[in-house]
Amino acid sequence: MVYRENNNIYVKTSEKTYPIILSSDFAKTIIDFYKENLFPRVAVIVTNRTIFRLWRSKIDRLSSLIGAEIVFVPDSEKAKSLETYDKLVNSLAHYDERKSSLAVIAIGGGVVGDLAGFAAGTYRRGIPIIQVPTTLLAQIDSSIGGKTAINLQAGKNLIGVYHQPDCVVLDMRFLSTLKEENLKEGLAEGIKYGVIRSPALFSMLEEVADMDQIDWPSFVGECAAIKARVVSRDEKESRGLRYILNFGHTIGHAIEVATDNRISHGIAVAIGMVKATEIACRLGICRHTTLVRLLRLLDKFSLPSDIKMDASQKRRFWRALMRDKKFSSGKMKFILPVRIGAVRVVDNITRDMIRI
Amino acid sequence: MVYRENNNIYVKTSEKTYPIILSSDFAKTIIDFYKENLFPRVAVIVTNRTIFRLWRSKIDRLSSLIGAEIVFVPDSEKAKSLETYDKLVNSLAHYDERKSSLAVIAIGGGVVGDLAGFAAGTYRRGIPIIQVPTTLLAQIDSSIGGKTAINLQAGKNLIGVYHQPDCVVLDMRFLSTLKEENLKEGLAEGIKYGVIRSPALFSMLEEVADMDQIDWPSFVGECAAIKARVVSRDEKESRGLRYILNFGHTIGHAIEVATDNRISHGIAVAIGMVKATEIACRLGICRHTTLVRLLRLLDKFSLPSDIKMDASQKRRFWRALMRDKKFSSGKMKFILPVRIGAVRVVDNITRDMIRI
Repeated sequence: MVYRENNNIYVKTSEKTYPIILSSDFAKTIIDFYKENLFPRVAVIVTNRTIFRLWRSKIDRLSSLIGAEIVFVPDSEKAKSLETYDKLVNSLAHYDERKSSLAVIAIGGGVVGDLAGFAAGTYRRGIPIIQVPTTLLAQIDSSIGGKTAINLQAGKNLIGVYHQPDCVVLDMRFLSTLKEENLKEGLAEGIKYGVIRSPALFSMLEEVADMDQIDWPSFVGECAAIKARVVSRDEKESRGLRYILNFGHTIGHAIEVATDNRISHGIAVAIGMVKATEIACRLGICRHTTLVRLLRLLDKFSLPSDIKMDASQKRRFWRALMRDKKFSSGKMKFILPVRIGAVRVVDNITRDMIRI
Repeated sequence: MVYRENNNIYVKTSEKTYPIILSSDFAKTIIDFYKENLFPRVAVIVTNRTIFRLWRSKIDRLSSLIGAEIVFVPDSEKAKSLETYDKLVNSLAHYDERKSSLAVIAIGGGVVGDLAGFAAGTYRRGIPIIQVPTTLLAQIDSSIGGKTAINLQAGKNLIGVYHQPDCVVLDMRFLSTLKEENLKEGLAEGIKYGVIRSPALFSMLEEVADMDQIDWPSFVGECAAIKARVVSRDEKESRGLRYILNFGHTIGHAIEVATDNRISHGIAVAIGMVKATEIACRLGICRHTTLVRLLRLLDKFSLPSDIKMDASQKRRFWRALMRDKKFSSGKMKFILPVRIGAVRVVDNITRDMIRI
């Protein structure tokens, strides 16, 4: 269950209810929350050097006011390794020697959130964590829902736990430091939320002339609330509901693999959504106007709707798609739109229905 | 909640209900359970060379009948490291490439169970595991309740997760290969269960002349049922009930630290139980007859009731006790017996009440 109060979104999970706080000063918000809920735990701030350079005065103030230690992790996907995890949990143990309990404050994008979340979820079988996502994508997606993971040599996100945060702080000012490409990544996921659950969100994006006109607090708040509603009703992906978040991701993921991640996640998802909607139109599940609205919206934000792959990339695309966990016995499970705001799970999609 | 059916003990947890099966042929029991509940997952048996040498024909049969792969881990406390964990989860990923889902079968003592449990609890955020404990201590204690952990340089059991098994198989024939010292370790924990919860279990042990006369299936079944009842009512140690399992362990743990683990866990717990019962007698919480019954029972199984430590060991003993997580603000929380079968949490134990 999810409810709103004082402009915060509260997410009820099986273990606790935590707030998603829309803030314009993350340091102040964390200090207030910490003093009321987590004091006198020793706080360990996990962040990277890039974030620290950009937000040093805020992080220093936060650190001094709640007596927090700062641990730096590398600034790339490489940080999501067992090696970095090893260092991080040993750092936690180091600060833990002085007092009996700890809490983690993760300030960064998806990499920092995933790594610090896995560390907090496993250190002493789980300690509190405040998630402070600094990218649009992390704010509206990965910071909410408690999924944490790191990579193995054998593959991405292969080890992890479900560990719900104690609080998620969404500070709009982080968005001002992001490159347009990062914002586009987030917008693609936001458009996804519109298609699967919110005609209002989709319309809001249709009504603006360009990215600068977007009311970011409304956009982030609405996306976060949708994600929260879906995950709170299907915390551990056991009920199938959470699966609708995969709209655009089945084909999108195969495109990422086929292009060696040269096509970014957001761009791949944009293309994946178009391909899925085309399938839905061909199957008569949704009307052509839905596809047209989606194409127009992506185009306005310079998000692509198609990709040209060479023969070798196409081979890898199909191999990745067939090995996807959603694939079983020759037929694939897809999330297809019925109209803007509603999707359906269709589990008998065959290879010939997919045009790439 | 815990209930019995067909000689099995069923443990209800927040996520699932799993059986603890008293078996006299673990391979057959696992094959039956696997085919009914986990097929067609790829099974990965995690064990060590010592166990494999002793039970090779059974494990081979198990492996061939359900098509299981075998992964070996080192045969000591050193196996509970991030390094071994890294190899183990990469092995899981290796076998996972062929099919979409896996299950783990852990055959070994507490080390194998803890390591394989942590791997199963984190690989893809949790895959099924069958625990097949091969020591008396693991059968009646660590295999039940879902606590898993590995060690860091900074300390033992510092990272882990709660991950409930899908099935626990207790095969009495493993006990025949154990040294008397191992059986004594388990007996000490069994006596603990008697003091905290079961006058019947305590009496059963009082009535036998020596270890050879013990009805092991009854003993193991009763201990496992007590552990299951406690942990099913306090799955994640949030309600305090699970804390009663620490009877004898507060002082016991400090003795282990003070003697560099030269005093084994079971022996240290035996001494810890006596010290705690002495405190209870002095405080007038329990009658002297309880202490006498405990001392006689330990003596019958050649379990010690006291320890002589030199000055340096004593210093380390007190330091360890004061740093124990149960210690706060100069007063310690102890589990003290009221009578055989009932204990009480007493949280104002001061240093001078403890005689060592």
